Amino acid sequence: MPQPIQFLPPKQDVLSRRATIIDDLRGLLPADCVIHEARELVPFETDAFISYRRMPLAVVLPRTTSQVAAVMKYCHRYGIPVVPRGAGTSLSGGAIPQEDAVVLGLSRMSRIIEIDYANRTATVQAGVTNLSISEAVAVDGFFYAPDPSSQLACTIGGNIGMNSGGAHCLKYGVTTNNLLGVKLVLVDGQVIELGGKHLDAAGYDLLGLVCGSEGQLGIVTEATVRLIAKPEGARPVLFGFSTSEEAGACVADIIAAGIIPVAIEFMDKPAIEICEAFAKAGYPLDVGALLIVEVEGSEAEMDATLENIVEIARRHQVMTVRECQSATEAALIWKGRKSAFGATGRIADYICMDGTVPLGKLSYVLKKTSEIIDRFGLRVANVFHAGDGNMHPLILFNANDPEEAMKAEEAGNEILKLCVDAGGCLTGEHGVGIEKRDLMRHQYTPAELSQQMAVRAAFDEGWILNPSKVFPLEGRG
Amino acid sequence: MPQPIQFLPPKQDVLSRRATIIDDLRGLLPADCVIHEARELVPFETDAFISYRRMPLAVVLPRTTSQVAAVMKYCHRYGIPVVPRGAGTSLSGGAIPQEDAVVLGLSRMSRIIEIDYANRTATVQAGVTNLSISEAVAVDGFFYAPDPSSQLACTIGGNIGMNSGGAHCLKYGVTTNNLLGVKLVLVDGQVIELGGKHLDAAGYDLLGLVCGSEGQLGIVTEATVRLIAKPEGARPVLFGFSTSEEAGACVADIIAAGIIPVAIEFMDKPAIEICEAFAKAGYPLDVGALLIVEVEGSEAEMDATLENIVEIARRHQVMTVRECQSATEAALIWKGRKSAFGATGRIADYICMDGTVPLGKLSYVLKKTSEIIDRFGLRVANVFHAGDGNMHPLILFNANDPEEAMKAEEAGNEILKLCVDAGGCLTGEHGVGIEKRDLMRHQYTPAELSQQMAVRAAFDEGWILNPSKVFPLEGRG
Repeated sequence: MPQPIQFLPPKQDVLSRRATIIDDLRGLLPADCVIHEARELVPFETDAFISYRRMPLAVVLPRTTSQVAAVMKYCHRYGIPVVPRGAGTSLSGGAIPQEDAVVLGLSRMSRIIEIDYANRTATVQAGVTNLSISEAVAVDGFFYAPDPSSQLACTIGGNIGMNSGGAHCLKYGVTTNNLLGVKLVLVDGQVIELGGKHLDAAGYDLLGLVCGSEGQLGIVTEATVRLIAKPEGARPVLFGFSTSEEAGACVADIIAAGIIPVAIEFMDKPAIEICEAFAKAGYPLDVGALLIVEVEGSEAEMDATLENIVEIARRHQVMTVRECQSATEAALIWKGRKSAFGATGRIADYICMDGTVPLGKLSYVLKKTSEIIDRFGLRVANVFHAGDGNMHPLILFNANDPEEAMKAEEAGNEILKLCVDAGGCLTGEHGVGIEKRDLMRHQYTPAELSQQMAVRAAFDEGWILNPSKVFPLEGRG
Repeated sequence: MPQPIQFLPPKQDVLSRRATIIDDLRGLLPADCVIHEARELVPFETDAFISYRRMPLAVVLPRTTSQVAAVMKYCHRYGIPVVPRGAGTSLSGGAIPQEDAVVLGLSRMSRIIEIDYANRTATVQAGVTNLSISEAVAVDGFFYAPDPSSQLACTIGGNIGMNSGGAHCLKYGVTTNNLLGVKLVLVDGQVIELGGKHLDAAGYDLLGLVCGSEGQLGIVTEATVRLIAKPEGARPVLFGFSTSEEAGACVADIIAAGIIPVAIEFMDKPAIEICEAFAKAGYPLDVGALLIVEVEGSEAEMDATLENIVEIARRHQVMTVRECQSATEAALIWKGRKSAFGATGRIADYICMDGTVPLGKLSYVLKKTSEIIDRFGLRVANVFHAGDGNMHPLILFNANDPEEAMKAEEAGNEILKLCVDAGGCLTGEHGVGIEKRDLMRHQYTPAELSQQMAVRAAFDEGWILNPSKVFPLEGRG
């Protein structure tokens, strides 16, 4: 990339001790848990934010909390940076390593420890995939609500690190709203527990603080999450509009009316075409923008909610209203939406922005986004969680054209600044990672940033946990 | 009290400079905003946890964020402790001052700044009462969900400090689930903003951290909260059981079935009698325990939910099921419940415990609570938010009998330890305050406590904000 994101300069003393460090790690963990040969390190060089890659010092794949604690105690003692990693699906570069870092992969901690229906909780290891929690309780009529599009692969530990969302978070909330407790290995290897199966906690809400802290405050090794009963029925309905602005205004009016469907997903014309070509979901191709609105409950409840929504949509000259007629059709509609990023990747390189705006500003921000993209001579596909105001413009470009790549990055930055200036923020569910690190200065005043960094230092004074992420590299406390 | 809770020894240098400090404060604020005469200080000596009182150094009642900032800058510079205060309704002593402290009262910052229906938010000053937010938007069909029993008096700033709950939090969540943003004056007088009208925030969730931090991380002067549309209808239903254990088991089964009513409130026989005598709500007097279950939605939805709940209640030999027949009756049922503490205060002195337990343990903890109370030869009335597992045993005693008072405090401590040992925690919605400070050692390991204290120090290194609260006085970082 023409304006490469900087990493902290590697610690030379750590690099020079690489052989010793690997030996030491092999003394702490079973041999198969320490990866250090170049060929085997390749899969850990980057994550789903593929613009950057770095070969890490080593990778450890522990199986227990005690092994994680032993690694942290060792790395803390010798000042070795540690980059935690779930499934490596981060879209903001949250799991990209650095040359002097030990990547601490949680993928082998993939056991479901307990399903407790009496308290409607599941306790799982951090490497369990998001979807497998829902799969484990589906037979009993329950599910785990946050549903990132990567839910087949992404881990609950990664979800906690990024406070991940998903299409169904409009009603059920994002990860932080569904997380009840964690086991956390502190930077020095001490193990603490935050939260539990009960409401609230005495003292400060460190659980909420850890959720979304991008692996900088400690290593989550276990999580207790809330289970939710499946609704009696659920029905996605397609609403087609002539323009993105109309669709956006309709979303704002639904929310302003106090109606909370389970999901309101937005796709503009390019996104509809890309997803339809891939998934054959039956999306209407003659509209300018599409909303997928999911309602749930009894047949009567769904009918009643839908009636209110249709009435609002009519005020915005809705062109098409299509209720799906079968479970198969519903599954296809969601498959189309959830494979949007993958489908886009088939036709172009893209970067996915993740700004969030107050709903009253949705229409305005869509319009301005389009102007920015035009000005840079680029193309964009918008597909996002509209009910939450969580926008995902996918900026299309050719990664082999350095000038276009630079333009895409610049356009992305402008769009995120636009979200902030509209009273929103840089990220909804993908985190800051390395991608938006420098834009934090646009979101926050120096006092706000330095307070965040002071909190970080209260957990990790030496800045060894995922050190290149979240905060601008300059001016650290 | 026979085992008086200790306060930190007053700073002699602050006490000796009292006259200068008052002069200085009068230079910073309009004269009517600084209270210093003994007679006028009396109302600020204690809060609703009336067992302890201290005369503060002075009280300031600023009207603007800048005035709050000026006071903090001054107190920070000279190391003067500051105790923030809303309406003084804390049940855990969160607003009790100390002799060397300036009480910073927010009661004059009581303006509703903005109602924004497009984003379903209200932005208010910290001294606005909880109920007045709902009152301001009622005409448009909205409300603010958390509803502490003290909602007529308590302020949103105090609610944020204690992460307050209320009867209707089972469905809608407590304060932290309904808080979108705050303006926070840091200890040194800098003003920062956390959150806003949008979902999530980039970087750490300092907003969640501040919520429930009992005034120790900064002074909240403004808050943006979520508004919720009033349901089509709502209906409280009374379920009478022969014993508390049956009622408790019924609650656990409702939740385990995945049903989330708006509220499930619990009253045992003594609580029913006390509340009925006061409010004439028509509670059945021939039952051993009562649940008030509120359902909401359309008539059809309420009927359907209720049918499921009645079926579960039958499995627990429910004796009475009574649907209320009118809005007046519904209001009376809630009046009875919400005046429980006041009604108890008419017949005896009491201390109100606030432990939270996993629902699977509710029946067990009720039984054990009763055994503890019997062993101490005391009486107890249980009236609480059962759906959340948030227990409120009111331990009755005679405050003029020092021995009985001591017994009540000891019994309370045993009950809270019982909650913790059952996998729950010390507090659901009243906070730690000075009341449960020393029990934090029972809830947390030294590593967990010291991590919390490190976070506190990252905001207030000199421990001047509400310093005698939340953490044990010994062993501070």
